[in-house]
Amino acid sequence: MDKKKNISMAVIRRLPKYHRYLRELLNNDVDRISSKELSTKIGFTASQIRQDLNCFGDFGQQGYGYNVPDLYKEISGILGLECEYNTVIVGAGNIGQAIANYSQFEKLGFNLEAIFDINPKLIGLKIRDVKVHDIDNLDAFLKENKINVGVICVPSENAQKICDIFVNNNVKGIWNFAPVDLEASEDVIIENVHLSESLLTLTYLLNGTQCEIRGKH
Amino acid sequence: MDKKKNISMAVIRRLPKYHRYLRELLNNDVDRISSKELSTKIGFTASQIRQDLNCFGDFGQQGYGYNVPDLYKEISGILGLECEYNTVIVGAGNIGQAIANYSQFEKLGFNLEAIFDINPKLIGLKIRDVKVHDIDNLDAFLKENKINVGVICVPSENAQKICDIFVNNNVKGIWNFAPVDLEASEDVIIENVHLSESLLTLTYLLNGTQCEIRGKH
Repeated sequence: MDKKKNISMAVIRRLPKYHRYLRELLNNDVDRISSKELSTKIGFTASQIRQDLNCFGDFGQQGYGYNVPDLYKEISGILGLECEYNTVIVGAGNIGQAIANYSQFEKLGFNLEAIFDINPKLIGLKIRDVKVHDIDNLDAFLKENKINVGVICVPSENAQKICDIFVNNNVKGIWNFAPVDLEASEDVIIENVHLSESLLTLTYLLNGTQCEIRGKH
Repeated sequence: MDKKKNISMAVIRRLPKYHRYLRELLNNDVDRISSKELSTKIGFTASQIRQDLNCFGDFGQQGYGYNVPDLYKEISGILGLECEYNTVIVGAGNIGQAIANYSQFEKLGFNLEAIFDINPKLIGLKIRDVKVHDIDNLDAFLKENKINVGVICVPSENAQKICDIFVNNNVKGIWNFAPVDLEASEDVIIENVHLSESLLTLTYLLNGTQCEIRGKH
């Protein structure tokens, strides 16, 4: 796996897109595609596709293209999708509940083991058959259960505290929805979904067009 | 605003992070900071910070650093936050409801005008005082109301259809949560939040550690 270490985040972030397009091709019973055809579908240049995939192995065949089922299987493996990830969600607010109900979650191999919240009204409820526990029990739960991925859906001010509990209990993957940059030891992977930052990228790109100056109404 | 055109997406995607850190500084009554101090906080190098900000103007002063309130105001303007954005959400499922309830939304200048869904059980309900309309009325609503931003929270197979309705009604900003790449005319800005792709980046980076091979249980 050492080869992976040298691969740029830009390439890594394109991999799931390859995976998605290949799944679509499979669903349409396409079992073979050239990098050029894939290029027109996915919107990357053919040479970029070849370069990206060459980071992980020698998949395409000159004059034949890519075998879709094989490449899909390979990329699934590269993405770690042959694995199951025992997962907990902390924060059963809107985002937490959306993630808990997120249909792709289990399909991708994430087993939602428990949800935690601080709100007594939510504790004891079930979301998609998964119980909401008192957040005070998170540490004990993590000591009793091997959890691979922790999802943080709490307000910013509490996010680092939850992150620390995860890290102290050897949770190596953190999917963070709190609008804050978490600190953790280097061996912990933190993937952020910062909705505000996505929204501000949109407003930036709208470039002042099509909007009303604030206060005008 | 032409200057903006030449700025790389990498720089653009860092801007909201500057904005977030500057807001924190403001909240802590810090009114002046050096690029070096900002660097230790935000995790970019001081020279990167200077380069990034120089794309938009000459903000820092040699030997003084950055005036936090001024820089915050400038970046807010650059990000289009002096504007209000009339917004609709299409798809009142988990993600749509999470976005509708998303507290940052209004603060950032997004006025949620209406929510649309296909599910009769949801139509007529209110989410945060905003009514859920029948999706069949989306086109008519957009013709009667000036909408700047459309949020797509419907399943993939319906997302392009909704995108087309937005584009045909001159909605120039689309925030897309459907796991699909939408096609629209060049003058339309599409910002994607692809949760699956974020999740697969996490599983990739976990690099097969800390997981159970599927089927073992």
